[in-house]
Amino acid sequence: MDATSARKMAGLVRGGRVAALGTLRDGAPLVTQVIYSVADDFSAFYIHVSRLAQHTQDILRDPRVSLMIAESDDGTVDPQTLARVSVRGDAVAITPEDDRYDGIKRRYLQKFPAAAPNFDLGDFMLYCVEPQSGRFVGGFGKIYNLTPVNFLAAAASDSPRMQS
Amino acid sequence: MDATSARKMAGLVRGGRVAALGTLRDGAPLVTQVIYSVADDFSAFYIHVSRLAQHTQDILRDPRVSLMIAESDDGTVDPQTLARVSVRGDAVAITPEDDRYDGIKRRYLQKFPAAAPNFDLGDFMLYCVEPQSGRFVGGFGKIYNLTPVNFLAAAASDSPRMQS
Repeated sequence: MDATSARKMAGLVRGGRVAALGTLRDGAPLVTQVIYSVADDFSAFYIHVSRLAQHTQDILRDPRVSLMIAESDDGTVDPQTLARVSVRGDAVAITPEDDRYDGIKRRYLQKFPAAAPNFDLGDFMLYCVEPQSGRFVGGFGKIYNLTPVNFLAAAASDSPRMQS
Repeated sequence: MDATSARKMAGLVRGGRVAALGTLRDGAPLVTQVIYSVADDFSAFYIHVSRLAQHTQDILRDPRVSLMIAESDDGTVDPQTLARVSVRGDAVAITPEDDRYDGIKRRYLQKFPAAAPNFDLGDFMLYCVEPQSGRFVGGFGKIYNLTPVNFLAAAASDSPRMQS
């Protein structure tokens, strides 16, 4: 991936708030919408979802998911050119007993303060999705298959250390 | 579904340009983005996609798909409250020999004139997705399971005839 595309992908992943979540429901796809946070190095995406929701019921039966984060469509450009990144991986529950839980929760709530009450509800679960593969479409002809290493590289492309 | 929600869903479906498309890839979900058009009565959604794209390869192997259309996130509201509708159904190819093809193509290109060159490419296929089931989230606590009849009713809720 060229440096411009990597930075574009990094901006999209860091700046996005909502993701389309694909789960398996009776063996067929279901796409819903979730809010998400992401590890600084793009090694993992995090979602906090209710057990009452269809997508969580699906994940409890089969952890294979896909997330897709897209540039918001404000109606001004050809929608075929909107940037988007697709992620595939397994949704793995992170319980409050996990050492990582508090840090992930804190970062998630920095991004979504209005979601704080969900952490007091017994039916919500925190899931981690480590990208196993993916694809970034940065515009016409800017299509890249992604490995986990590509996610890390995209994250590094706009880090302060890399830019200095 | 209450009348306000039905009209909100109708506005979302008619006004949207992009949908998240869930397909089955090696038995697991893949979510990508497509542009779509919709029949006036919401009896069918239409996508025009390249055989070279992963989602089309997936559909050729298994027609079960999900589409999700979401209110654009402009960053101003709690993203948990953004309206979205999920659709589930089978993607069925509509060939140029089909009586419906020309009308669907014309309507699609009225919405997406920039996509006209795709119809001259041999690798593009037109698919119809008739909603078999779905779900509309109109905001907090405004969640409705949808049958095909609900799609038709939502479409009728904002039609000129219904409003007069």
